[in-house]
Amino acid sequence: MTELALQLSERQTADFEMIGNGGFAPLTGFQGSADWQRVCDEMRTAAGDYWPIPITLATGLECEVGDVIKVTSDDGKPLGTVTVEEIYQRDLEHEAKSVYRTTDLEHPGVAAIHEDGTRCIAGPIQVDALPDHEDAFQRRYLTPAESKQAFADRGWKRVVAFQTRNPIHRAHEYLTKAALEVSDGLFIHPLIGKTKAGDVPADVRMKCYELLMEDYYPDDRVILGVNPSKMHYAGPREAVLHAIVRRNYGCTHFIVGRDHAGVGDYYGTYEAQELFDEIDLDELGIEPLKFEHTFWCNKCEGMASNKTCPHDADSHLFLSGTKVREMLGNGEMPPPEFSRPEVAQILIDAYKEDN
Amino acid sequence: MTELALQLSERQTADFEMIGNGGFAPLTGFQGSADWQRVCDEMRTAAGDYWPIPITLATGLECEVGDVIKVTSDDGKPLGTVTVEEIYQRDLEHEAKSVYRTTDLEHPGVAAIHEDGTRCIAGPIQVDALPDHEDAFQRRYLTPAESKQAFADRGWKRVVAFQTRNPIHRAHEYLTKAALEVSDGLFIHPLIGKTKAGDVPADVRMKCYELLMEDYYPDDRVILGVNPSKMHYAGPREAVLHAIVRRNYGCTHFIVGRDHAGVGDYYGTYEAQELFDEIDLDELGIEPLKFEHTFWCNKCEGMASNKTCPHDADSHLFLSGTKVREMLGNGEMPPPEFSRPEVAQILIDAYKEDN
Repeated sequence: MTELALQLSERQTADFEMIGNGGFAPLTGFQGSADWQRVCDEMRTAAGDYWPIPITLATGLECEVGDVIKVTSDDGKPLGTVTVEEIYQRDLEHEAKSVYRTTDLEHPGVAAIHEDGTRCIAGPIQVDALPDHEDAFQRRYLTPAESKQAFADRGWKRVVAFQTRNPIHRAHEYLTKAALEVSDGLFIHPLIGKTKAGDVPADVRMKCYELLMEDYYPDDRVILGVNPSKMHYAGPREAVLHAIVRRNYGCTHFIVGRDHAGVGDYYGTYEAQELFDEIDLDELGIEPLKFEHTFWCNKCEGMASNKTCPHDADSHLFLSGTKVREMLGNGEMPPPEFSRPEVAQILIDAYKEDN
Repeated sequence: MTELALQLSERQTADFEMIGNGGFAPLTGFQGSADWQRVCDEMRTAAGDYWPIPITLATGLECEVGDVIKVTSDDGKPLGTVTVEEIYQRDLEHEAKSVYRTTDLEHPGVAAIHEDGTRCIAGPIQVDALPDHEDAFQRRYLTPAESKQAFADRGWKRVVAFQTRNPIHRAHEYLTKAALEVSDGLFIHPLIGKTKAGDVPADVRMKCYELLMEDYYPDDRVILGVNPSKMHYAGPREAVLHAIVRRNYGCTHFIVGRDHAGVGDYYGTYEAQELFDEIDLDELGIEPLKFEHTFWCNKCEGMASNKTCPHDADSHLFLSGTKVREMLGNGEMPPPEFSRPEVAQILIDAYKEDN
């Protein structure tokens, strides 16, 4: 048996970390062909558990079944091993169609699996160490076991998780707080792994979240963690993955917004919410809280959504993503009803540094 | 067999109506001694269903088991019959202690059972007609079968009910809307039966609700009904009764606030919410949504609660009930962050007429 070594890509490092820290339970390794097939076809592992997106290790590394591969993170940190149980070819078209509902190579998730390639090795991992993160993330880092303990310490039974890969403006602050009103605690759990170009970088977002934790969320009801996952942009299927991950972190409820984990026009606005209607929630172990588009309404004199506000759109404060980026890029503050001024300032400063 | 007739009191009429319209399912008549005992002791009917407050017909009417009594409402409308299955004496002390957690005759619920007396007749009812209500209530009247149909027609699966015996100010509007954000529909279901002296009369409240339905709630997500029940002020036990009634009306979730259905200092702020922790919610068939004290916060620039706002009390707009009644009585508008001006105006006008 030769000494085999593999440096994982950034995306593979994130998967190794999520398997290793328990965020991807019940997975204990990279998935083999039987898992891959049933995940694609039925959204379940070969063993029968709900699982929406194959977690695979695509690599050209020469190896044989039985080999133990030493793996390092994308920045060279030794993480542990993968024991090769199977080497197989996956059908990228089938995976794209089943998981992403499109074979379009412009889709960033579909592009990523094509970049990774068809040849996968599968098998259990052994974790010696988790990947390192920059300090801004590391000091908010909680493993699933740690977040469960933190919830238990606070006596929280009903805990709602919020997934985000964007700064939190007032619309999202509102929906997290509406969810918190009917829960014991809120777990703000931003994804800090690989996102697509153009998204606000995770370290800048982290400053925004920290500011909100300081000034606008109560300490005793809200915990800010980090989710080291990468994004797939798989829309409905990824919403289910996001829910499973938060179940593993100890949450009982999960916020599902419009076009959750979507990109471009690949998914219908409510497709992610609707997929949960086809799922046995007791079996899944976490319940979705489905939210509408939220905004400030001048007639309500408060935050609201199409569900709770009867007034015309011209009473609603609406700024497109493009418009907001343009304002922030020009050093211009959006109205305080759109964004907390302190948050806007962080983003304005980040745009300045960027240029 | 003699022709027996009984004119029900206002409170008994309400019970007859709730049994008769299906709001008190699975009850099909006034409860007998076996039910009475187990309801007091275990919060269940003799048949084993959750039931928190005995629904009894206390009367001095001379009758025998087997008699069929013709009953009329408190205003003389023939409603149907009660068939006497049992005549028994109830232990008022035991009922007071078990259900009201106090034997204090100052408690309006305890006072009411003492006023009704110990001798009860029990048996199934036959309903020929439901009691009449004034037009303001009648045009919002829905039986449980009708509200279920209305929810189904709108495709609502997750429907949250709001019980109220007060005008809806912004604090309560906020919590109904926070609950609606995570539901398909909201059923505003004010209790219009007998309340205690000093409460805002139901017809005035109804005008406030109608105004809010017109101007502040969206038609397609909110239904206003009326709940013809009387109040018991039994706190925790009555919160459970309120939940069961709304389950019967087709709701899946029920808002439980602080000191729900309480009066004076008889119950702890959270006792009603805590009682639901001891209940099998799957068996109950409806889930509580527990809310904190809600208010306008100047620093949040929005509605919030102690759960969602980190700021000091001096940032919160707080007006005591006494203060609000004083302002309204003097024709003075509370701040718009406390009450919608249109609602305040209705109450100001009502106070004027009253004097």
